[in-house]
Amino acid sequence: MAITFELIHTCKQTGARYGKLHTPSGTFETPIFMPVGTQATVKSLTPEEIEHVSEGLILANTYHLWNQPGMDVVKAHGNVKHMMQWQHALLTDSGGYQVFSLSKMRKITEEGVHFKHHKNGSPLFMSPELSIDIQQTIGADIIMSFDECPPPHESREYLKDSLERTLRWAKRGKDYLSTDQALFGIVQGGLEEDLRLYSAEKTMAIGFDGYSIGGLSVGESKEDMYRITALLKDVLPIDKPRYLMGVGAPEDLITNVMNGIDMFDCVLPTRLARHGTALTTEGKVILKSKRYEFDLSPLDSNLKTLASPYTKSYLRHLYKAEELLVSRLVSIQNLAYLKHLMKEIREAIKEDRLYDYYINMKSKTNYFK
Amino acid sequence: MAITFELIHTCKQTGARYGKLHTPSGTFETPIFMPVGTQATVKSLTPEEIEHVSEGLILANTYHLWNQPGMDVVKAHGNVKHMMQWQHALLTDSGGYQVFSLSKMRKITEEGVHFKHHKNGSPLFMSPELSIDIQQTIGADIIMSFDECPPPHESREYLKDSLERTLRWAKRGKDYLSTDQALFGIVQGGLEEDLRLYSAEKTMAIGFDGYSIGGLSVGESKEDMYRITALLKDVLPIDKPRYLMGVGAPEDLITNVMNGIDMFDCVLPTRLARHGTALTTEGKVILKSKRYEFDLSPLDSNLKTLASPYTKSYLRHLYKAEELLVSRLVSIQNLAYLKHLMKEIREAIKEDRLYDYYINMKSKTNYFK
Repeated sequence: MAITFELIHTCKQTGARYGKLHTPSGTFETPIFMPVGTQATVKSLTPEEIEHVSEGLILANTYHLWNQPGMDVVKAHGNVKHMMQWQHALLTDSGGYQVFSLSKMRKITEEGVHFKHHKNGSPLFMSPELSIDIQQTIGADIIMSFDECPPPHESREYLKDSLERTLRWAKRGKDYLSTDQALFGIVQGGLEEDLRLYSAEKTMAIGFDGYSIGGLSVGESKEDMYRITALLKDVLPIDKPRYLMGVGAPEDLITNVMNGIDMFDCVLPTRLARHGTALTTEGKVILKSKRYEFDLSPLDSNLKTLASPYTKSYLRHLYKAEELLVSRLVSIQNLAYLKHLMKEIREAIKEDRLYDYYINMKSKTNYFK
Repeated sequence: MAITFELIHTCKQTGARYGKLHTPSGTFETPIFMPVGTQATVKSLTPEEIEHVSEGLILANTYHLWNQPGMDVVKAHGNVKHMMQWQHALLTDSGGYQVFSLSKMRKITEEGVHFKHHKNGSPLFMSPELSIDIQQTIGADIIMSFDECPPPHESREYLKDSLERTLRWAKRGKDYLSTDQALFGIVQGGLEEDLRLYSAEKTMAIGFDGYSIGGLSVGESKEDMYRITALLKDVLPIDKPRYLMGVGAPEDLITNVMNGIDMFDCVLPTRLARHGTALTTEGKVILKSKRYEFDLSPLDSNLKTLASPYTKSYLRHLYKAEELLVSRLVSIQNLAYLKHLMKEIREAIKEDRLYDYYINMKSKTNYFK
């Protein structure tokens, strides 16, 4: 087995899971947040900086790397880790999300998806086997089954057809895989509870090294998201890691951890940074706000990061002046905060007090507003 | 005196000057290249990184900082060095260059310049006294007289009137200065040799801590630029530093050093970086070029920088993918190269072999093409 998952403790207050994910590139305590290196770079940061603000497990995007720089360039470097000088663990998505969210004029067949490139319009085709091929070339420790990620409010009929096809694609991908990379299956089914349960049952029947929950954080309400993860809490196998894809807001992380999730990824911390919003132990800081014009305090009094030497006033100036440095410093802060939050969450799980921690976080920060 | 300049050696081959510039914030060997931190940040870099790729003397822009964040915010921090966490030496321009190059609808009077903000169009006024006030608030070690920087191909009559006014402004600024900051006068006169000589003579008659050459690198040919610096080589006082403003291309640095220049600044290294062009000991590398698609060699085999671990192929990918990291890594490389070049130039001056070095550089790199 490429990876093993060790469930070590279940929080008596919440049922949240503390565990260890053993991979060929290191062991990681869970629940874990994984920064996203979409195009083989976590936006604006060097690998040394990513080491400091992550646990050593990051994500890269199959669709983007397939298109740019392309697999020939990746092969020339050996794999993406060598190319980007990342010494630790890597997870890739399957490309499915981008095929459905970014591409134009897609046509879904049983074989795969015909579509046009999101920028240059050139015709492309992606199949479960090709997705596995690309992920093998990228060389991630953990890879994903190719799935359709349908829009959140599709009809039941569409969702049912789609998830049946996704199940057949998952089986094809598993059969095709020829490396010892860990392969996760992806549970779909939109916001329909019976479809989610059906998808989970059938995906588990195929059998994977871990289970992802896809098709959430795509525009639905937080209540809907939490309802689906709560539904799957007692359904997914306890001895495999559970990965909620594309979720990274602090309030969503802690709530979904209480719903049994072990792994998360999201571009949110780096995207917010580029828009001048910081995530801190004291809550969200929106740097463009006039209230920070003369604020000489640091972004986060409780966390020491590369951003600590600077005043909010100076960071606000950099944001208003459209200076790249603010993206870097706030990205570092945001990722450091999520790393810190997940560590605190793990401590609280181990000590059976995650609900107390949640109530405290809710009263002390503006994340839940 | 706020600064002193020590001329230590004049190259027997070229007449280039090796010296030491003593400032309240450190002593710097000259000739020196100063990175530009336009808006109180050298684009994309932290102060720790700037320390590595500079000699510890950088430039900030009066016009930009006056507008954003404004002097009240700078005052709240004490000065710009405190605001940006820069522990070393700082030089400011007078704002004159931007008033004339960026602003709209300017009206020049004896008192100063009425103009409109380059982005929001709000009415502004700058005078020699206000420029000094702003530069005092910014708190640089070395500051500039407010000058008019006329377009390169203005008529002789215009240039004559303009430089007479610049001389009166320089005198007013000097009389107004109440700190012990070092103040430089700026020689203007376009490409007219007699006007340049007249401007130099009259500026020297007022008496400054150093002499800048303004109004070059504004669109004229390299031959014209070199002709004017060569003209001033035997005119400017030997015991004061000579600063050629806005020049930073490798071939221009070495050529103007041979014409007696001691100090340079330019946004070129960081601007080129954002456009994917690297300056290296082996010459210019244009990353977008297809020839680097599979090139696994580092940007510069002879310089160890933050960019060294990466292949040209990966850096090209980052450039094509419009990733911020490439701006950072290539900015570091470009500034490190200019620092390296200036160190080599100083060594060559001390050993009376700068012309040999120049010929070698011309034959071994593509900078002069």
